[in-house]
Amino acid sequence: MTEVTRSAARRSATLEDVARVAGVSRATVSRVINGVRNVAPEIQETVRQAVEATGYVPNSAARSLVTRRAGAVALVVSGTGARDSDGDAARTQIFTDPFFGRVVSGVLSGLRPQGLHPVLMLADDADAREQVLAYLRQGNADGALVVSTHAEDPLPAQLARNGLPVVLFGRPQPRVPVSHVDLANQDGAALAADHLFARGCRRIAVIAGPSAVPAARDRLDGFREAMDRHGLPDVPHAEADFTQAGGERAMTRLLADHPDLDGVFAANDLMAQGALAILREQGRRVPDDVAVIGFDDSSAATAGRPLLTTIRQPVEAMAEEMTRILLDGLDRPDRLDRRAVSVLFEPSLVVRQSA
Amino acid sequence: MTEVTRSAARRSATLEDVARVAGVSRATVSRVINGVRNVAPEIQETVRQAVEATGYVPNSAARSLVTRRAGAVALVVSGTGARDSDGDAARTQIFTDPFFGRVVSGVLSGLRPQGLHPVLMLADDADAREQVLAYLRQGNADGALVVSTHAEDPLPAQLARNGLPVVLFGRPQPRVPVSHVDLANQDGAALAADHLFARGCRRIAVIAGPSAVPAARDRLDGFREAMDRHGLPDVPHAEADFTQAGGERAMTRLLADHPDLDGVFAANDLMAQGALAILREQGRRVPDDVAVIGFDDSSAATAGRPLLTTIRQPVEAMAEEMTRILLDGLDRPDRLDRRAVSVLFEPSLVVRQSA
Repeated sequence: MTEVTRSAARRSATLEDVARVAGVSRATVSRVINGVRNVAPEIQETVRQAVEATGYVPNSAARSLVTRRAGAVALVVSGTGARDSDGDAARTQIFTDPFFGRVVSGVLSGLRPQGLHPVLMLADDADAREQVLAYLRQGNADGALVVSTHAEDPLPAQLARNGLPVVLFGRPQPRVPVSHVDLANQDGAALAADHLFARGCRRIAVIAGPSAVPAARDRLDGFREAMDRHGLPDVPHAEADFTQAGGERAMTRLLADHPDLDGVFAANDLMAQGALAILREQGRRVPDDVAVIGFDDSSAATAGRPLLTTIRQPVEAMAEEMTRILLDGLDRPDRLDRRAVSVLFEPSLVVRQSA
Repeated sequence: MTEVTRSAARRSATLEDVARVAGVSRATVSRVINGVRNVAPEIQETVRQAVEATGYVPNSAARSLVTRRAGAVALVVSGTGARDSDGDAARTQIFTDPFFGRVVSGVLSGLRPQGLHPVLMLADDADAREQVLAYLRQGNADGALVVSTHAEDPLPAQLARNGLPVVLFGRPQPRVPVSHVDLANQDGAALAADHLFARGCRRIAVIAGPSAVPAARDRLDGFREAMDRHGLPDVPHAEADFTQAGGERAMTRLLADHPDLDGVFAANDLMAQGALAILREQGRRVPDDVAVIGFDDSSAATAGRPLLTTIRQPVEAMAEEMTRILLDGLDRPDRLDRRAVSVLFEPSLVVRQSA
């Protein structure tokens, strides 16, 4: 009982008390407490001292009950469906991929002007997906930005079915009407094919991403179609998992089966790095013996030598746009209910040293 | 008025209503709604259907008002103090550093068993720091995990002064009594020095991290002291910014000033990668002409060839421990008020190809 009384006494200070002690208006106190910019530093300090002196505890839970807005957005990395025994390593692999860091950077750019912050969630199995749904249903976040790594990921459809605002990075499975941003992946792969062909490469192989990932399928299809247009219909490929180690294994297999190849297209930069490592080990000069081109233009493209020629995906801008679409929808819920918004970005060729 | 009435009607369904419709206990409904594991899938589905049928909206803001716990933890990346015009690029650089991904992975491991999620915040200038303080003061998060990239970062002291629960990655400035995890950085650097000396290297240089970062200073000091014990008191060094590009520039300077050097210690793996790139460009064989050793054992250590010999920092385990310390403190607030907890981790040498 003493505990409750003390707690109640501590909470009894109001915004008005703080304003009176600080000698400023309620609006100014509110701005300082909410971290709104452009309040003079000395006034901020005065208000902060008044907050400490009065013991005022602003409570956003109370405000949230009134506004029914959480003021938070979930950033969900949605995994492959089954968590395996090597979950920790798989998790580290996802989050140390430069792609993830670029998404985070773009999302922060989009949320920051609104004073919002992303809640990071990993949905890598059914339990974790249920946690994401529960979190949103309970109003802890107003909507979700989802980066899905698997085409059969059920989360986007679950979110949409529950009427929860969601925007995806990458197009969803057919017939799930969910807002998303995406890259013209086929066009990007065609840029790579045209560049290798123009260099004179004629025995070209592809290190493809997982066939379960739509973007990976699009890159393989786009590359093959472009090579077909150049009169080269038979392009061998090996599938890997978008990691450097996977790229190394795929390159080893491709060289064993096609020792005379003179060009390689890898569906992301990490796998291209793996290809470069194996080509070096086997004494092939890049680009003179074998030209190599990656995809993404991530930090991995400039991490080794030779510098990687690659297809640029503007991940930061795409993530920022994804955030903008979500926030627009929250401001106009009627609109988000009605139709899905999709924005397609164009890739570009970045020529460096490897091709 | 109609709006309010409709909203009230929609909210009138209670947990009891859901339990009755689903034919299960209130406790079971609660467990499903809160995403607690080990509820049979068919029961989960029954409860979910009942939630949809009744229109029940569980609201965590209401619960938060009762418990005065937000159920969220802030993961704050605290920057260099002044945001520059190139803010977007700097942000992407922070978040694509494998170190950040490893921290995220460890924090998720620590929070997940509690059903908690990290709110990601970037505090890279005074305004952003004020937003972090406001966010915590308003009860949006129960505490903060802070990864600070600068020794003069005022945020840890600001958090502590406001009585907000906080745990740092890396030791704080002297005299700020804040809980933290850290690595025995000097010991790690000594391991590197001993290994290079034992290989026969005698003309060794250091690519140091920013002198404003305590861990960077500790690594340089530890390396020098160990070399001094080996009778080599004069170790030249160049300072860089923990990036690959910075490592390239530092290696170029060191080679110009000391063309005969036979060993390099870089204070992180990204800078060591930069050193490898420049050594290759200048025709030096690694490790035969120049042995190179990095620090961290991040994904960068195995991203190129030769594979990097490095000092392992168990970042994931450290981040998980940081999370555990914070959660322990939240459960026992009296304890967190009283004393700061610090946990020191031991580094280890990982021998690969480069030294």
